[in-house]
Amino acid sequence: MIKISILYPNTPDSRFDMRYYVDTHMPMSIELLSAHPGFKGVTVEHGISGAIPGSEPAYIAMCHFLFDSPEDFMDAFTPHAAALQGDMPNYTTIEPVIQFNEVVISIAG
Amino acid sequence: MIKISILYPNTPDSRFDMRYYVDTHMPMSIELLSAHPGFKGVTVEHGISGAIPGSEPAYIAMCHFLFDSPEDFMDAFTPHAAALQGDMPNYTTIEPVIQFNEVVISIAG
Repeated sequence: MIKISILYPNTPDSRFDMRYYVDTHMPMSIELLSAHPGFKGVTVEHGISGAIPGSEPAYIAMCHFLFDSPEDFMDAFTPHAAALQGDMPNYTTIEPVIQFNEVVISIAG
Repeated sequence: MIKISILYPNTPDSRFDMRYYVDTHMPMSIELLSAHPGFKGVTVEHGISGAIPGSEPAYIAMCHFLFDSPEDFMDAFTPHAAALQGDMPNYTTIEPVIQFNEVVISIAG
Protein backbone atom coordinates (compact mmCIF):
# COMPACT_ATOMS: atom_id res chain seq x y z
CA MET A 1 0.00 0.00 0.00
CA ILE A 2 1.15 3.52 -0.68
CA LYS A 3 0.38 6.84 0.98
CA ILE A 4 0.33 10.17 -0.82
CA SER A 5 1.09 12.92 1.69
CA ILE A 6 0.15 16.52 0.96
CA LEU A 7 1.67 18.85 3.56
CA TYR A 8 0.92 22.59 3.75
CA PRO A 9 3.83 24.50 5.33
CA ASN A 10 2.79 26.86 8.10
CA THR A 11 4.37 29.97 6.59
CA PRO A 12 3.82 33.50 7.89
CA ASP A 13 1.89 35.83 5.59
CA SER A 14 0.27 32.91 3.80
CA ARG A 15 -3.45 32.26 3.67
CA PHE A 16 -5.11 28.96 4.55
CA ASP A 17 -8.89 28.80 4.94
CA MET A 18 -9.28 25.69 7.12
CA ARG A 19 -13.07 25.80 6.98
CA TYR A 20 -13.14 25.79 3.16
CA TYR A 21 -10.45 23.12 3.03
CA VAL A 22 -12.24 20.76 5.44
CA ASP A 23 -15.86 21.52 4.48
CA THR A 24 -15.56 21.98 0.72
CA HIS A 25 -12.23 21.11 -0.91
CA MET A 26 -11.49 17.81 0.84
CA PRO A 27 -15.05 16.42 0.55
CA MET A 28 -14.93 17.14 -3.22
CA SER A 29 -11.46 15.60 -3.46
CA ILE A 30 -12.52 12.50 -1.50
CA GLU A 31 -15.69 12.06 -3.52
CA LEU A 32 -13.73 12.15 -6.79
CA LEU A 33 -10.74 10.01 -5.73
CA SER A 34 -12.58 7.40 -3.65
CA ALA A 35 -14.52 6.29 -6.74
CA HIS A 36 -11.37 4.46 -7.88
CA PRO A 37 -11.16 0.82 -6.69
CA GLY A 38 -7.53 1.35 -5.60
CA PHE A 39 -8.64 3.91 -2.99
CA LYS A 40 -7.96 2.58 0.52
CA GLY A 41 -8.56 5.56 2.79
CA VAL A 42 -7.79 9.16 3.63
CA THR A 43 -7.06 11.30 6.66
CA VAL A 44 -6.96 15.06 7.04
CA GLU A 45 -5.28 16.84 9.94
CA HIS A 46 -5.04 20.35 11.30
CA GLY A 47 -1.61 21.14 12.79
CA ILE A 48 -1.93 22.31 16.39
CA SER A 49 1.65 22.59 17.68
CA GLY A 50 5.21 21.50 17.29
CA ALA A 51 6.83 19.04 19.68
CA ILE A 52 6.70 21.68 22.43
CA PRO A 53 3.13 22.61 23.49
CA GLY A 54 2.26 26.11 22.29
CA SER A 55 4.98 26.18 19.61
CA GLU A 56 4.01 26.66 15.96
CA PRO A 57 3.50 23.47 13.93
CA ALA A 58 5.70 23.05 10.83
CA TYR A 59 2.55 22.32 8.77
CA ILE A 60 -0.83 24.01 9.11
CA ALA A 61 -2.60 21.04 7.50
CA MET A 62 -1.81 17.57 6.20
CA CYS A 63 -3.72 15.17 4.01
CA HIS A 64 -2.79 11.52 3.46
CA PHE A 65 -4.41 9.35 0.78
CA LEU A 66 -3.99 5.56 0.85
CA PHE A 67 -4.02 3.70 -2.47
CA ASP A 68 -2.96 0.23 -3.59
CA SER A 69 -0.23 1.66 -5.84
CA PRO A 70 1.14 4.94 -7.22
CA GLU A 71 -0.44 4.02 -10.56
CA ASP A 72 -3.86 3.67 -8.94
CA PHE A 73 -3.51 7.12 -7.41
CA MET A 74 -2.48 8.66 -10.72
CA ASP A 75 -5.39 6.92 -12.50
CA ALA A 76 -7.77 8.31 -9.88
CA PHE A 77 -6.28 11.79 -9.75
CA THR A 78 -5.41 12.64 -13.35
CA PRO A 79 -8.98 12.98 -14.71
CA HIS A 80 -9.75 15.45 -11.87
CA ALA A 81 -6.38 17.22 -11.63
CA ALA A 82 -7.61 20.43 -13.24
CA ALA A 83 -10.69 20.67 -11.01
CA LEU A 84 -8.81 19.88 -7.80
CA GLN A 85 -5.77 22.05 -8.46
CA GLY A 86 -8.05 24.80 -9.78
CA ASP A 87 -9.86 24.84 -6.44
CA MET A 88 -6.68 25.45 -4.42
CA PRO A 89 -6.70 29.29 -4.72
CA ASN A 90 -10.12 29.15 -3.01
CA TYR A 91 -8.44 28.12 0.26
CA THR A 92 -4.73 28.81 0.13
CA THR A 93 -1.71 30.58 -1.33
CA ILE A 94 0.60 27.87 0.06
CA GLU A 95 2.49 25.52 -2.23
CA PRO A 96 2.18 22.07 -0.60
CA VAL A 97 4.95 19.51 -0.13
CA ILE A 98 3.77 16.34 -1.87
CA GLN A 99 5.34 12.92 -1.63
CA PHE A 100 4.68 9.25 -2.29
CA ASN A 101 5.42 6.80 0.51
CA GLU A 102 5.43 3.05 0.90
CA VAL A 103 3.47 2.06 4.03
CA VAL A 104 5.70 -0.36 5.95
CA ILE A 105 3.82 -0.61 9.27
CA SER A 106 0.09 -0.01 9.89
CA ILE A 107 -1.51 -0.90 13.22
CA ALA A 108 -4.93 0.06 14.59
CA GLY A 109 -5.16 0.42 18.39
CA MET B 1 -8.36 12.16 18.09
CA ILE B 2 -4.87 13.50 17.64
CA LYS B 3 -1.96 12.45 15.46
CA ILE B 4 1.69 12.90 16.38
CA SER B 5 3.71 13.10 13.17
CA ILE B 6 7.47 12.46 13.22
CA LEU B 7 9.02 13.35 9.87
CA TYR B 8 12.66 12.65 8.97
CA PRO B 9 13.92 15.16 6.37
CA ASN B 10 15.68 13.54 3.41
CA THR B 11 18.90 15.51 3.75
CA PRO B 12 22.08 14.76 1.79
CA ASP B 13 25.01 13.49 3.86
CA SER B 14 22.71 12.28 6.63
CA ARG B 15 22.43 8.69 7.75
CA PHE B 16 19.15 6.78 8.06
CA ASP B 17 19.19 3.02 8.59
CA MET B 18 15.71 2.05 7.36
CA ARG B 19 16.16 -1.60 8.32
CA TYR B 20 17.02 -0.77 11.94
CA TYR B 21 14.23 1.82 12.09
CA VAL B 22 11.54 -0.55 10.79
CA ASP B 23 12.78 -3.82 12.32
CA THR B 24 14.05 -2.63 15.71
CA HIS B 25 13.30 0.98 16.69
CA MET B 26 9.65 1.21 15.66
CA PRO B 27 8.65 -2.22 17.08
CA MET B 28 10.19 -1.16 20.43
CA SER B 29 8.47 2.23 20.24
CA ILE B 30 5.11 0.64 19.37
CA GLU B 31 5.39 -1.97 22.11
CA LEU B 32 6.06 0.72 24.72
CA LEU B 33 3.51 3.32 23.56
CA SER B 34 0.66 0.97 22.63
CA ALA B 35 0.42 -0.21 26.24
CA HIS B 36 -1.37 3.09 27.05
CA PRO B 37 -5.18 2.93 26.74
CA GLY B 38 -5.18 6.20 24.76
CA PHE B 39 -3.20 4.57 21.93
CA LYS B 40 -5.33 4.36 18.79
CA GLY B 41 -2.91 3.30 16.07
CA VAL B 42 0.34 3.94 14.24
CA THR B 43 1.66 3.96 10.71
CA VAL B 44 5.23 4.07 9.43
CA GLU B 45 6.16 5.03 5.88
CA HIS B 46 9.25 5.04 3.71
CA GLY B 47 9.41 8.03 1.34
CA ILE B 48 9.76 6.88 -2.26
CA SER B 49 9.46 10.06 -4.37
CA GLY B 50 8.20 13.59 -4.54
CA ALA B 51 5.14 14.54 -6.58
CA ILE B 52 7.09 13.81 -9.78
CA PRO B 53 8.03 10.12 -10.19
CA GLY B 54 11.77 9.64 -9.68
CA SER B 55 12.22 12.91 -7.79
CA GLU B 56 13.60 12.86 -4.25
CA PRO B 57 11.00 12.78 -1.44
CA ALA B 58 11.13 15.62 1.10
CA TYR B 59 11.14 13.05 3.91
CA ILE B 60 12.98 9.72 3.96
CA ALA B 61 10.58 8.33 6.59
CA MET B 62 7.44 9.33 8.46
CA CYS B 63 5.76 7.92 11.54
CA HIS B 64 2.27 8.88 12.71
CA PHE B 65 0.90 7.89 16.12
CA LEU B 66 -2.83 8.19 16.87
CA PHE B 67 -3.88 8.91 20.45
CA ASP B 68 -7.08 10.12 22.08
CA SER B 69 -5.41 13.35 23.26
CA PRO B 70 -2.01 15.08 23.48
CA GLU B 71 -2.04 14.34 27.22
CA ASP B 72 -2.48 10.62 26.54
CA PHE B 73 0.51 10.67 24.20
CA MET B 74 2.67 12.50 26.74
CA ASP B 75 1.61 10.06 29.48
CA ALA B 76 2.54 7.15 27.20
CA PHE B 77 5.79 8.66 25.93
CA THR B 78 7.36 10.38 28.92
CA PRO B 79 8.28 7.24 30.92
CA HIS B 80 10.09 5.88 27.83
CA ALA B 81 11.49 9.13 26.41
CA ALA B 82 15.07 8.41 27.44
CA ALA B 83 15.03 4.88 25.99
CA LEU B 84 13.39 5.93 22.72
CA GLN B 85 15.42 9.09 22.14
CA GLY B 86 18.56 7.27 23.24
CA ASP B 87 17.98 4.69 20.49
CA MET B 88 17.88 7.31 17.73
CA PRO B 89 21.67 7.47 17.11
CA ASN B 90 21.43 3.74 16.28
CA TYR B 91 19.55 4.55 13.07
CA THR B 92 19.95 8.20 12.19
CA THR B 93 21.78 11.51 12.47
CA ILE B 94 18.64 13.36 11.26
CA GLU B 95 16.72 15.69 13.57
CA PRO B 96 13.03 14.90 12.91
CA VAL B 97 10.24 17.43 12.45
CA ILE B 98 7.64 16.62 15.13
CA GLN B 99 4.14 18.03 15.36
CA PHE B 100 0.78 17.46 17.01
CA ASN B 101 -2.29 17.45 14.77
CA GLU B 102 -6.03 17.25 15.29
CA VAL B 103 -7.55 14.59 13.02
CA VAL B 104 -10.50 16.24 11.27
CA ILE B 105 -11.34 13.62 8.62
CA SER B 106 -10.61 9.88 8.74
CA ILE B 107 -12.11 7.51 6.17
CA ALA B 108 -11.21 3.88 5.42
CA GLY B 109 -11.68 2.77 1.80
